[in-house]
Amino acid sequence: MNKIKIGIAGYGNLGKSVELGIRHNKDMELIGIFTRRDPSALKIITEGVQAYHFDQAANMKDKIDVMILCGGSMADLPEQGPYFAGMFNTVDGFDTHAKIAEYFKAVDKKALESGKVCMVSCGWDPGMFSINRVYADAILPEGGTYTFWGKGISQGHSDAIRRVKGVKDGKQYTIPLDDAIEAVKRGDMPELSARQKHKRVCYIVAEEGADRKQIEHDIVTMPNYFSDYDTEVYFITEEELKKNHSGLPHGGLVIRFGKTGLNLENNHTIEYKLVLDSNPDLTANVLLAFARAAYRLSNEGISGAKTVVDIPPAYLSDKSAEELRELFI
Amino acid sequence: MNKIKIGIAGYGNLGKSVELGIRHNKDMELIGIFTRRDPSALKIITEGVQAYHFDQAANMKDKIDVMILCGGSMADLPEQGPYFAGMFNTVDGFDTHAKIAEYFKAVDKKALESGKVCMVSCGWDPGMFSINRVYADAILPEGGTYTFWGKGISQGHSDAIRRVKGVKDGKQYTIPLDDAIEAVKRGDMPELSARQKHKRVCYIVAEEGADRKQIEHDIVTMPNYFSDYDTEVYFITEEELKKNHSGLPHGGLVIRFGKTGLNLENNHTIEYKLVLDSNPDLTANVLLAFARAAYRLSNEGISGAKTVVDIPPAYLSDKSAEELRELFI
Repeated sequence: MNKIKIGIAGYGNLGKSVELGIRHNKDMELIGIFTRRDPSALKIITEGVQAYHFDQAANMKDKIDVMILCGGSMADLPEQGPYFAGMFNTVDGFDTHAKIAEYFKAVDKKALESGKVCMVSCGWDPGMFSINRVYADAILPEGGTYTFWGKGISQGHSDAIRRVKGVKDGKQYTIPLDDAIEAVKRGDMPELSARQKHKRVCYIVAEEGADRKQIEHDIVTMPNYFSDYDTEVYFITEEELKKNHSGLPHGGLVIRFGKTGLNLENNHTIEYKLVLDSNPDLTANVLLAFARAAYRLSNEGISGAKTVVDIPPAYLSDKSAEELRELFI
Repeated sequence: MNKIKIGIAGYGNLGKSVELGIRHNKDMELIGIFTRRDPSALKIITEGVQAYHFDQAANMKDKIDVMILCGGSMADLPEQGPYFAGMFNTVDGFDTHAKIAEYFKAVDKKALESGKVCMVSCGWDPGMFSINRVYADAILPEGGTYTFWGKGISQGHSDAIRRVKGVKDGKQYTIPLDDAIEAVKRGDMPELSARQKHKRVCYIVAEEGADRKQIEHDIVTMPNYFSDYDTEVYFITEEELKKNHSGLPHGGLVIRFGKTGLNLENNHTIEYKLVLDSNPDLTANVLLAFARAAYRLSNEGISGAKTVVDIPPAYLSDKSAEELRELFI
């Protein structure tokens, strides 16, 4: 069997998780890791795999079947997505919800020109949660869909608290509120504010002599990030932070409540729940499954940008249609 | 907009739920209900809709876009599936897991001859649970998948207890065992026997003067249905049975436990859970969503039998690709 030849563009947490994920997908092999920085500075885990500069990618069009884009959604992907779409089948986890339509359009244009398949926004939210929101809406047309995140580390919010004056280090957990989840499951169809759905809990290592009251005030009143939530701030030691808060756990829950019957007398709930020790590991695994789909679609002569809901589930699997019917249907 | 013209073949619990479900799918209309019995004996809920005999279906090929097959999997569908596939796009909920491959082949042959699209095994298990087993296996390749059913009424087991001597009426609940679910979520990757996964609870109305000890013995020792499970038998009055056990609730849970990381040190769980007041209502709604997919695929010139994992989620939705990206991605 010809293995699917994978390239990784960007070697942060997500890129490293993709590298490790490839080991558990027997039909894939890692060809190279691409970076904007000095390639010789990368310490690659996989023996025998080379690092290349982004500029070298153009020479490797024939050596790579799918390029997995592991840059950030804020600064990297808006540029890198269209750039790589001009040369490769790609998969990314672009997750700025408000800008997906615009990003999709930019990638689609390049992908149609190059004749490649580019999978956009393929993590778990957007990604697996999007899939579940679409299925749930289709099979329970009368109802409401609710998404909760956590308990887990939000990297954006953790970055935000580390920029507060007097903060040496810190981590922020997003925690869904049980009362809200119960109200949804019960069928109340509640209108929930940001504050009613999640709370935010911060673990802070303060700099020596810093004004803790001021730090707490600066965090809980920070617009966009914290002012719309109930936020708890705990000061801990650097050792505690390292010991208890150095992972990247996350997860979440999509719930659909819906009604059926002559007088809408029957209630139903559909729940899709993820509990993840490592947010980047699961995201990476989802990207790899959609890389398989991109490879297949490309071999069928298809091109353009696609989202997760455009792909038949069977295209994500390394198993044949007969095996899937035998094992999973 | 041209509405999708739906026919219903078979008018039991499922057929009636499909009829009601169409009301909540604004892009569909019910054209007719088909029966093996005397059409004039059917009491159809929807005003203005006619009943027809199966034999009349052949004259209505141009009037119906998708025929929803609502017969039973044991006796009806093995014959009706291929029969209607020769004339119509079809959707069914064929749920005899061990015979799906054989049934698929028979329907596929007819569908390819007639140029129609026939969606096979599209309820919730097989159906939505199958989809989730495939996704979970693809995105967490190192791990195990477990399916639990209930709490809910098993119609097959309820039929079985009603055939026991001395039983006037009865209902059987399948109940998943919390210990097993917890072990799976914890990551024990347990090997679970039938008895360790579910218990069976029977509510029995005995005939006057019947030997209750004998009834209980006959039920709990019944091979295939009960002997491999811990089974509880409760005798209740006919009034109680009607009052408390006349619905058809069901549900279940697909759990994937998987591991990632350099030394498989990160644990993850994916759960898909359904809690349903009405098993036939939810099944009907799933069939209707896949009817929409069958209609679209047929308009694209595709033919043959398909399962749920062959269909992109977007094909189930009444919303456009742009709307889906806006609302759900």
